[in-house]
Amino acid sequence: VAPLGSAGPRELSFVSSARYAPRAAETRAGVVLLPRDLPCELPAGTTAIRVRDPHLVLATLLPILYPEAAGAPGVHPTAIVHPEAEVGAGVRIDPYVVIGSGTRIGDRARVGAHVVIGERCSVGSDTVIHPQATLYPDVSLGARCVVHSGVRLGVSGPGLTMTAEGCRQTPLLGGCHIGDDVEIGANSVIDRGAAGSTTIGDGTKLDNLVHLAHDAAVGSRVLLVAQVSLGEGARVEDGAVIGGQSGVDAHLTVGRGARVAGKSGVTASVRPGDTVSGYPARPHREAMRAQATLFRLPSVLRKLQELERAVQRRD
Amino acid sequence: VAPLGSAGPRELSFVSSARYAPRAAETRAGVVLLPRDLPCELPAGTTAIRVRDPHLVLATLLPILYPEAAGAPGVHPTAIVHPEAEVGAGVRIDPYVVIGSGTRIGDRARVGAHVVIGERCSVGSDTVIHPQATLYPDVSLGARCVVHSGVRLGVSGPGLTMTAEGCRQTPLLGGCHIGDDVEIGANSVIDRGAAGSTTIGDGTKLDNLVHLAHDAAVGSRVLLVAQVSLGEGARVEDGAVIGGQSGVDAHLTVGRGARVAGKSGVTASVRPGDTVSGYPARPHREAMRAQATLFRLPSVLRKLQELERAVQRRD
Amino acid sequence: VAPLGSAGPRELSFVSSARYAPRAAETRAGVVLLPRDLPCELPAGTTAIRVRDPHLVLATLLPILYPEAAGAPGVHPTAIVHPEAEVGAGVRIDPYVVIGSGTRIGDRARVGAHVVIGERCSVGSDTVIHPQATLYPDVSLGARCVVHSGVRLGVSGPGLTMTAEGCRQTPLLGGCHIGDDVEIGANSVIDRGAAGSTTIGDGTKLDNLVHLAHDAAVGSRVLLVAQVSLGEGARVEDGAVIGGQSGVDAHLTVGRGARVAGKSGVTASVRPGDTVSGYPARPHREAMRAQATLFRLPSVLRKLQELERAVQRRD
Repeated sequence: VAPLGSAGPRELSFVSSARYAPRAAETRAGVVLLPRDLPCELPAGTTAIRVRDPHLVLATLLPILYPEAAGAPGVHPTAIVHPEAEVGAGVRIDPYVVIGSGTRIGDRARVGAHVVIGERCSVGSDTVIHPQATLYPDVSLGARCVVHSGVRLGVSGPGLTMTAEGCRQTPLLGGCHIGDDVEIGANSVIDRGAAGSTTIGDGTKLDNLVHLAHDAAVGSRVLLVAQVSLGEGARVEDGAVIGGQSGVDAHLTVGRGARVAGKSGVTASVRPGDTVSGYPARPHREAMRAQATLFRLPSVLRKLQELERAVQRRD
Repeated sequence: VAPLGSAGPRELSFVSSARYAPRAAETRAGVVLLPRDLPCELPAGTTAIRVRDPHLVLATLLPILYPEAAGAPGVHPTAIVHPEAEVGAGVRIDPYVVIGSGTRIGDRARVGAHVVIGERCSVGSDTVIHPQATLYPDVSLGARCVVHSGVRLGVSGPGLTMTAEGCRQTPLLGGCHIGDDVEIGANSVIDRGAAGSTTIGDGTKLDNLVHLAHDAAVGSRVLLVAQVSLGEGARVEDGAVIGGQSGVDAHLTVGRGARVAGKSGVTASVRPGDTVSGYPARPHREAMRAQATLFRLPSVLRKLQELERAVQRRD
Repeated sequence: VAPLGSAGPRELSFVSSARYAPRAAETRAGVVLLPRDLPCELPAGTTAIRVRDPHLVLATLLPILYPEAAGAPGVHPTAIVHPEAEVGAGVRIDPYVVIGSGTRIGDRARVGAHVVIGERCSVGSDTVIHPQATLYPDVSLGARCVVHSGVRLGVSGPGLTMTAEGCRQTPLLGGCHIGDDVEIGANSVIDRGAAGSTTIGDGTKLDNLVHLAHDAAVGSRVLLVAQVSLGEGARVEDGAVIGGQSGVDAHLTVGRGARVAGKSGVTASVRPGDTVSGYPARPHREAMRAQATLFRLPSVLRKLQELERAVQRRD
């Protein structure tokens, strides 16, 4: 598999959207995956395979085409695996990994160089942890997850909690439970719960540099774009999408399938299916209309003054 | 110590606020810490201990109940401690730690796996540094601090500086001094000073993914919530609280005890005790009123047009 | 070289701007670099050297004054360098570094402790990579770059892509190419491209905790201040400056030499040379005027009501 521009006649490439279609005319790829209904010309000698969603098909093909990308299984001699840790079959553990006592690593999991996994964690089968990630003790991570470099899971503090009177510190003694098929972008941070747990449901994807405060509860198939921050105890229900750099205040709920535009500040719960934007976040249309009006304000003020003068003249 | 839901008859649990009180009725914990005046029912067989602040009491009890959490003292054989570094009594240094020449580690400090500490640093007694954190050279860190995983202290660049004419780069040759009892959340970054120093006072807590530019000066008992950014030379005085995702422009002061709401952009200094919000940040009430009015604007415009017509009709 | 306050008679110090001039009167430094036209008194016994830009001069002097800061060249015995990796002359590789197969490290480069570099990467000559940074496979990094601690380059997912219908995941199979003289602040994250590449031009500086989504294209001599986020496929042309905590939506262009104020949300392309601010970002003056009017709104509303009553009285 290679990009359109560099793929050769023995390689597979793909066009994901109309944006990239023009480049396809000059590819030298042997085979190109195309969306079923995308107008797109290919050079002679290149075979088109039309599918509903090239990305989905690729995601299925990649592990078949590159079984060796996982590297040979085995534990690198420099890895320090506690004798009371349990390592499944076909696991690959890279140099300088440190794994604590009582931790279980599922079958075929891959643990990248320098990853540190604390005591009593569990890592599901086929999960990939990239270099330099850290799991604090007692974190559970499901099957087929991807954890990127520099992610910190189950962080135990400082546990800042916003209250009506200000902000205080809470000891974090709870858990951190992450479902199956979850992907977590680089340098993201997820706190453990205070008394309960911080949780992420199956199939959810977090982009880079995302922050989840203690006791946040994220449902299934949720998408959190880069640099999103969830306050402590915030709930994001199944299928919701939160745009980049947005924040959700403590203890609020973003309902099932709701959408929060980028850079929004959610200060009240969002109903299922709603789309909100701005700060404080409001229904998207209302926010756009208010914003548009804001830029007409100087002319409104002028008109008001004229009107005032007109009324005074008449007095 | 265990959460209400999982604590057994030989364990201690706690209720921090009314939010969690209903769960207490079904706990099997032997002892529960409760706020003095919180109405809260406990099952027979569970002993209530009422205290002013269960969190504070827990923070005191935890090191007594879990002395072994610190692990046995000692330097792991894979740790590379420079012969000219000085390591105090009862220190624990985990696998693959690297400590540079001229650095001093105080008594009973714990240095987590893979931590890298540069030359000429000092780490106070009883301080805990979690895995994968980095101290650049010449950083001083006080006693009883907690530095979370992935924190970078005393970073030496790029040192971007906003000026009236734009933005420029400054070489960072200064220091980075952090007081006692400071906690710094995961993946936070603190630049060293340019000519002077970046400083943090005693008892201050930084949440995850916080950024302090060079020469920022943070006082004592300050709370900076997740993803806050302080511009170069910004001052935050004692006891101030800055909400998540807020930014403070270069060389401004947030006065003693002031509060900045989340997602604010501070573009002018904030007086001691004031509460500000929004971008540009304004006194909180003024900002809330302006924001509320913004959403009434479309109806204001309609009313203005009606009035205009009324006046014209009368002409 | 030392700060004004601590430099002794055998040391060099500097004054970068009027802000620091008063401190110069009490320095004990032997020599002080000063801006050519800055009024500034020095004590007897201190030699002033007046230059156009003390920072630029310092940047030139530092490597001459501190050649040993780079440490002696050599590969630490604990570093794991794949036999099919290529290491140039005078390179320094610190403890516990891991370098993959097919990777090339240029002459005199320095690779800090615990850095992990994947397969088939190239690192230019004289480039410095600070401890704990990660290069995913196939990243190319130019000469004389500085990559700070915790940076993640060429991250392969989750590749969230905003579309008109919502947000979806894209497999990231492309490259990540970084030019010469680039500096990247601590804990910043740069995704690899989907089909094409994510690119950064020569002389560009990224501050701490910056995020570049897949296929972002950043030109030369661009400055991105802390916590900036670029959406997928966003373009930032040569010489542009983007203030801290700002975001640029996917597939937009910030034109050559344009300036985006801090905390802005760019939702439409910015023309070359323009200055924008706010969210959604607008020409800076317009945004400031609208914002100022916003705070006059409550009084506008009052005036409108008075006017209404005046008109009704006359009816």
